Amino acid sequence: MKKILVINASARGERSHSRRLTDIFVEYYKECKPESPIKFRDLGTSNIPHINDKWIAGAFKPEGERTTEETEALKISAELIKELKNADVIVLGSPMYNWSVPSVLKAYIDQVLRVNETWEVNREDQKNPYIGLLKNKSLYLLLSRGAQGYEKGGYNEHMNFQSDYLKTVFNIIGITDIEEVSVNGEAFGSEEFELARKNSNAQIKELIKTQLL
Amino acid sequence: MKKILVINASARGERSHSRRLTDIFVEYYKECKPESPIKFRDLGTSNIPHINDKWIAGAFKPEGERTTEETEALKISAELIKELKNADVIVLGSPMYNWSVPSVLKAYIDQVLRVNETWEVNREDQKNPYIGLLKNKSLYLLLSRGAQGYEKGGYNEHMNFQSDYLKTVFNIIGITDIEEVSVNGEAFGSEEFELARKNSNAQIKELIKTQLL
Repeated sequence: MKKILVINASARGERSHSRRLTDIFVEYYKECKPESPIKFRDLGTSNIPHINDKWIAGAFKPEGERTTEETEALKISAELIKELKNADVIVLGSPMYNWSVPSVLKAYIDQVLRVNETWEVNREDQKNPYIGLLKNKSLYLLLSRGAQGYEKGGYNEHMNFQSDYLKTVFNIIGITDIEEVSVNGEAFGSEEFELARKNSNAQIKELIKTQLL
Repeated sequence: MKKILVINASARGERSHSRRLTDIFVEYYKECKPESPIKFRDLGTSNIPHINDKWIAGAFKPEGERTTEETEALKISAELIKELKNADVIVLGSPMYNWSVPSVLKAYIDQVLRVNETWEVNREDQKNPYIGLLKNKSLYLLLSRGAQGYEKGGYNEHMNFQSDYLKTVFNIIGITDIEEVSVNGEAFGSEEFELARKNSNAQIKELIKTQLL
């Protein structure tokens, strides 16, 4: 039975559109697989710390050589990595804030991309020196954006530092099986946005049906 | 006399390469213009908070309609925006962390990109709905990266979510006069990196000489 980890990055609660996407995922998945274990990680209402100099110094040392302060600085990182390693399916709901991910999601990324934990150095290729250490995981990116045109070929593609960025960092740690569903144009409201929502909800159900059941 | 604001985003202290770049800038500029006021904002060792739901609710309301909690949530934002508005020249030193900016710099960006403060809505063009409110400022991006090949046409260009991202967000708030100097390849040490450092130091002095004196 697959273990699911649902991560939400929106700072908003009920008014969040990315949270609605993860809700749709969870509801439908539970309906189909009522016994599957689902874990939740709420980044949006938490305060994931920025990595600091102690974190960096500790991360690049073997565990036994770390000072107490360095070990302390790596504590949240260790907890988040353990949780990520333990999941088979990761469902990440995130809004676009200022054309990228919310800072709390960047803080999460800085905490979980860690040498010898989620990636290791490939000394044979200076141009591609990363080997991802996480295996057999799939990731569902459920993204919301205030405006439109961020898809490939869209008029805002050059300002999308969200989709490809997330794919890049998760690829680095070995998660390459990634699907993306996005809902766009919240800022403009209207019937068009309602249609976009219906469409993304249908896509999520279809992905669950074809890939997870 | 130009007012300078120097922002550092590296979590590292003396071992930071981006801090060395801002040091070079400050030293040479002071040498040429000893009376110029220089203000420092250290993000790397601070804990700029992630924006939260109160922040978002407050930012989209007129000041007089905000609750006490919302005003409180916007306090750091107000302070950072005031500081930015007050500067003529912004010198931003930042490392690349996981192919983007450190989370603390993203938190700073989320705090300072604020409707009716640093940008306003352009209702005439849904495809380009932003009007930057900051005027007559220049920005020097002094960037460091562990690996190489992130320049236009380089083998890592597709993984550079740092340079174009920073230009994009500062353009939005009206800062379009931007120069970038980067030092690359720290992770590989060697003479090549020493040469890269010398080169970037020379570039910084040349920019000061031709643009600021």
